[in-house]
Amino acid sequence: MSGGNIIGERFVAMSFGESHGRCVGMLVDGCPAGLQLSEEDIQGQLDRRKPGQSAVTTQRKEEDRVEILSGVFNGFTTGAPICMLIWNKDADSRAYEAIKHIPRPGHADYPAMVKYGGFADYRGSGRFSGRLTAALVMGGAVAQKLLQETLGIEIVAYTSEIGGIKADSITAENIAQRYDNDVRCPDPAAAEKMRDAILAARRDGDSLGGIVECTTSSLPVGLGEPIYASLEADLSKALFGIPAVKAVEFGSGFEGSKRRGSENNDAYYMMKDGKIVTRTNNSGGILGGLSNGMPLIVRVAFKPAASIAKTQETLDVSSKSQAKLAVPGRHDPCVVPRAPPIVECVVSMVLADHAIRAGLIPPVLKKKGSA
Amino acid sequence: MSGGNIIGERFVAMSFGESHGRCVGMLVDGCPAGLQLSEEDIQGQLDRRKPGQSAVTTQRKEEDRVEILSGVFNGFTTGAPICMLIWNKDADSRAYEAIKHIPRPGHADYPAMVKYGGFADYRGSGRFSGRLTAALVMGGAVAQKLLQETLGIEIVAYTSEIGGIKADSITAENIAQRYDNDVRCPDPAAAEKMRDAILAARRDGDSLGGIVECTTSSLPVGLGEPIYASLEADLSKALFGIPAVKAVEFGSGFEGSKRRGSENNDAYYMMKDGKIVTRTNNSGGILGGLSNGMPLIVRVAFKPAASIAKTQETLDVSSKSQAKLAVPGRHDPCVVPRAPPIVECVVSMVLADHAIRAGLIPPVLKKKGSA
Amino acid sequence: MSGGNIIGERFVAMSFGESHGRCVGMLVDGCPAGLQLSEEDIQGQLDRRKPGQSAVTTQRKEEDRVEILSGVFNGFTTGAPICMLIWNKDADSRAYEAIKHIPRPGHADYPAMVKYGGFADYRGSGRFSGRLTAALVMGGAVAQKLLQETLGIEIVAYTSEIGGIKADSITAENIAQRYDNDVRCPDPAAAEKMRDAILAARRDGDSLGGIVECTTSSLPVGLGEPIYASLEADLSKALFGIPAVKAVEFGSGFEGSKRRGSENNDAYYMMKDGKIVTRTNNSGGILGGLSNGMPLIVRVAFKPAASIAKTQETLDVSSKSQAKLAVPGRHDPCVVPRAPPIVECVVSMVLADHAIRAGLIPPVLKKKGSA
Amino acid sequence: MSGGNIIGERFVAMSFGESHGRCVGMLVDGCPAGLQLSEEDIQGQLDRRKPGQSAVTTQRKEEDRVEILSGVFNGFTTGAPICMLIWNKDADSRAYEAIKHIPRPGHADYPAMVKYGGFADYRGSGRFSGRLTAALVMGGAVAQKLLQETLGIEIVAYTSEIGGIKADSITAENIAQRYDNDVRCPDPAAAEKMRDAILAARRDGDSLGGIVECTTSSLPVGLGEPIYASLEADLSKALFGIPAVKAVEFGSGFEGSKRRGSENNDAYYMMKDGKIVTRTNNSGGILGGLSNGMPLIVRVAFKPAASIAKTQETLDVSSKSQAKLAVPGRHDPCVVPRAPPIVECVVSMVLADHAIRAGLIPPVLKKKGSA
Repeated sequence: MSGGNIIGERFVAMSFGESHGRCVGMLVDGCPAGLQLSEEDIQGQLDRRKPGQSAVTTQRKEEDRVEILSGVFNGFTTGAPICMLIWNKDADSRAYEAIKHIPRPGHADYPAMVKYGGFADYRGSGRFSGRLTAALVMGGAVAQKLLQETLGIEIVAYTSEIGGIKADSITAENIAQRYDNDVRCPDPAAAEKMRDAILAARRDGDSLGGIVECTTSSLPVGLGEPIYASLEADLSKALFGIPAVKAVEFGSGFEGSKRRGSENNDAYYMMKDGKIVTRTNNSGGILGGLSNGMPLIVRVAFKPAASIAKTQETLDVSSKSQAKLAVPGRHDPCVVPRAPPIVECVVSMVLADHAIRAGLIPPVLKKKGSA
Repeated sequence: MSGGNIIGERFVAMSFGESHGRCVGMLVDGCPAGLQLSEEDIQGQLDRRKPGQSAVTTQRKEEDRVEILSGVFNGFTTGAPICMLIWNKDADSRAYEAIKHIPRPGHADYPAMVKYGGFADYRGSGRFSGRLTAALVMGGAVAQKLLQETLGIEIVAYTSEIGGIKADSITAENIAQRYDNDVRCPDPAAAEKMRDAILAARRDGDSLGGIVECTTSSLPVGLGEPIYASLEADLSKALFGIPAVKAVEFGSGFEGSKRRGSENNDAYYMMKDGKIVTRTNNSGGILGGLSNGMPLIVRVAFKPAASIAKTQETLDVSSKSQAKLAVPGRHDPCVVPRAPPIVECVVSMVLADHAIRAGLIPPVLKKKGSA
Repeated sequence: MSGGNIIGERFVAMSFGESHGRCVGMLVDGCPAGLQLSEEDIQGQLDRRKPGQSAVTTQRKEEDRVEILSGVFNGFTTGAPICMLIWNKDADSRAYEAIKHIPRPGHADYPAMVKYGGFADYRGSGRFSGRLTAALVMGGAVAQKLLQETLGIEIVAYTSEIGGIKADSITAENIAQRYDNDVRCPDPAAAEKMRDAILAARRDGDSLGGIVECTTSSLPVGLGEPIYASLEADLSKALFGIPAVKAVEFGSGFEGSKRRGSENNDAYYMMKDGKIVTRTNNSGGILGGLSNGMPLIVRVAFKPAASIAKTQETLDVSSKSQAKLAVPGRHDPCVVPRAPPIVECVVSMVLADHAIRAGLIPPVLKKKGSA
Repeated sequence: MSGGNIIGERFVAMSFGESHGRCVGMLVDGCPAGLQLSEEDIQGQLDRRKPGQSAVTTQRKEEDRVEILSGVFNGFTTGAPICMLIWNKDADSRAYEAIKHIPRPGHADYPAMVKYGGFADYRGSGRFSGRLTAALVMGGAVAQKLLQETLGIEIVAYTSEIGGIKADSITAENIAQRYDNDVRCPDPAAAEKMRDAILAARRDGDSLGGIVECTTSSLPVGLGEPIYASLEADLSKALFGIPAVKAVEFGSGFEGSKRRGSENNDAYYMMKDGKIVTRTNNSGGILGGLSNGMPLIVRVAFKPAASIAKTQETLDVSSKSQAKLAVPGRHDPCVVPRAPPIVECVVSMVLADHAIRAGLIPPVLKKKGSA
């Protein structure tokens, strides 16, 4: 609807705020009543996303303490809209005034300038800043807790590639340790190389991109709707809402398009406990847009960060003359290390929305006082 | 909304029908009044999609003649909902009764069985059939004409890879001839190899996948909304609504995630006529979710067709015993050759929706009797 | 969304067609799977609405046989969109060509002319015709059956006033006979007077208006959402979608606004079976926008039919000169007698939508083969 | 969507907050860029609504100073979501703990208790409080300014009846003075009587209801969409979102349903300046759901305030025994005097939404730097 700041049908989230405005916030409507929820439940994911955590991230310092303004009473959600926000404290807008007519290559500056007729808040990319992903995390952390508590679904995302360096060995065990290193890669050896590559790129005044992979425990069968609200459709829509994402694939994805059907189809069999599963998971857990009871597998490609210190060619649109630009401000040399909690949260919002649509999560979790 | 059969906010389309039911149709709400429209405007794209056209497609024979039931008066759209449909005539449902408890690997059969409690129409994949893409084409053909007539936007899609065989040389000239060969690949030499590969796969009782690429003439600057209704978000949502699509990338996509920022950023410059463009188009025409005035570039990966004659392992879910299945019925050994008109139409619907949202296409195209 | 032809969030309906076009239809998305449904279930209500039934209705003769084009398989809904339509057969468009520049007082002609730039289908009021209420009946008849079969809710509407003549005695018994007389008023003596008044107005080349009242069996507690999706909000929105409706009130309505709180508040008590009820029902079954377990009471005022034979003053907007107009065509001298099935159906759609939202009706009614 | 807290399609508003929570707020998405906007533009209407203004309102003292948290930059809207809120300061929740199991007659307490399983915030009616109308005023004040600055539309609401006492003479002149007396009735003599009646009711521990009428300057022709998004449909939906509203009528409304067509139809004529108008305005400015160029006329009935000091019969739902209740807390003896600014704001939001949908207000009001 409208300005594009709303997502979801049953678990609905509307984002607000700007990078250098007063705050960044998320308003969630449709969260069932009766979910135990405090600011601490959200803070964990926000902390994994926040800037200034390590040498591989931007040096902007923000505490990013979430405040819940509504929708929670006596420690439980009430069914009313949940308004959450973080206040901006360390914004430094001085650099942006000078370049407000000089669009930075790879950023939204130029189309935003045209689209909003000069009224957009250009400071720190305004509404297009990566800082807005904090709103995604706030909404998604609520969804993530909701999925865990009601359906026992676990959602994990991790860095699988940075600057062309791929994680080698990814296991259930090392995924559990994904947040133990700066780049959030389960493979510690690859993590080390990725870190070095980011620091090298930064030294060169340059940046890197990479890939985040997200998987889940087995999903219930039948999430998603055919055609336009397929799980793939709604997940990709939400994932492309993360700045710098340029590609999304499920299961065998692009690779699978090179195979034959007999190689790519996943054969069914029944486990001893009667659960129906497939021998492989090339579908990434989704068939015909519906979850098939296997874990979700989705991969998300992030372009190299657009803000680089290296001098680039661009235009001064006010004087209509060519310009050279070394992007000022404090920036991430690679956005991937901060992306896994964001991807987890975005995926959680979509799955929560579909679980409510499918009737798997009721409007009230458990009547108060009931056994 | 609801069952997932609706897409769009201003140019809204709701699909209906089943593969072996009475018809497949599309209901479009929000098309501006005053667009000259006849069944012939839609039939062209439907003909490019229809089955039985060549040796590389299914042999089901359907005339697929579109009928417009509402919303057009005296040869022009009225602003009222446009209901369009094709009648199913050559459905052969005999094979499906026998396998209604035996889910075909790679198809929606199993999750649909669970989700709809046994009530779904399973004949020919019912609502999950590739035949439903005819609805996308009907809605999209209207959008495509609307974009051409109002903004002069051209949208072209073509096969760029099948079974791992890549088109070598793609030019504006050979793109114009993309519909001249059976596989709809602009590169005639690659097209020949692709055709042979499909026929070989079919002989082996197997199938192939591939990649369709879509591009446009320069888009107006500023289509799309930040975050959840970014052009990438809405295009990917719509494209994943095409059965068998498993990956979507824009511009340099996955490849770009391996580059440095200085390689991937597109430098701005001004053309002699004052138009602001970029030297490269790694962004695929989209920055921050907004069109930047360059052509759109999007690539869509289709998995190998799930229906294969080769025997596969699966389950009989009624007897709960393992089963062997050679999928019956008539099928495409590769869906890619029929996909380019579908991709063109799907992209058109999304762009039309956003052009209306941005105020670039008015509610009435031109007052009757005005100059 | 979009052109205003869609209603509902979970039980979603999109209307299409024109009075003198090929058909009038309704596309319903979100009806749960597993509802036994045939054309006969819809035909009953359509027959009560159809034209040419008696001396007090228009003489246009339409059979109005509904066809279900999709969404039903083996006699049950599948969860897929249900497309239903009736074909127009007795349209006589000759009269409308002559007056296409002469807006009829009380009709949408003039604003539609301006809004759609001359492209609207003006024949028989086109999209604004009372004939479009057949679409409401098709969608609503499905909802009405759904509510009966799942929650046992009965919805009844009847004429309570025509031309200022009020029904005197309305009882559960005579409500059951409401369709036994031409004007659908439960009170037979009042019905006789209403009928005479309509015929007298017709003889004078004039028309009458009136009031339809709708009530239900006890609703489940808690339907509706606070503020914008309150039951009153959504019911009124849907009811004002019926042409000629100019006022809607719930419970004591306008009358109640003259009372004191101590007179208008409904006191709670508990029945012997433990059910909590109120002694009076001034709230019309809705408090704070939520159903409170009492029957719904809503009253809907219809203006006198705008099409009258009497000469009226208007304008020829092409020549910009004053004109005299005796409206041609065949028309209802009072729309109220045909309105009760429409009101029942419209109310049913809203209640079904909210019952699904509240989780009271599941996505699949009962798994096939389950006890 | 979802929890019912969102309204609008292009000018979208989502309300949040509770009566005794931290704040009450409104998040607006879709407001065009380039509207000059400060907190003062909103404060005026909030001040007219705020409690404790006079002897006829509740004695709760709230400053209700609005803060804009996002979406405005350098004094102009940016096109990004506008988050506005007021902090709650004078909430006194002591009384509510004692009655949390004793539903107050005429309030949402009982259905809310059931619907939200005991998790709803019951303090001061929580989400169902009249205090939530402050959110409507915040969103609507932005819409009201937008309509004035772009289309010159003026929207005025005033008290026309309280406790059965009707305003006698209402003129353009005295409407302009409507906010000069405590009850906001343009007719000063009637205002005096209304005030006395409210004070008398309060002395009796009782309350009164009444009617607010809203009208506008001439609307542009063609606002509204046929059927479900008719102006009447969308206005009534929004108006029933105001607590205590039980009836809505347009133009001649219920009265008109007693007339003949020849009396109720509005005859067209052309003014000297070429403007097409009607001699009467029984349609209230709306025909077929579309504005016809005349002023809007809508009347809204408010029930007597449910909170009264007089002892009422009710239930203790925890002990399942009858109870007597004198409602504690501070309350309005009549909500009507505070309602006119709310009605103005609610009507403004709907008209702004439709003006944007109709393309009459562009996404950017005026490019910066353009003449």
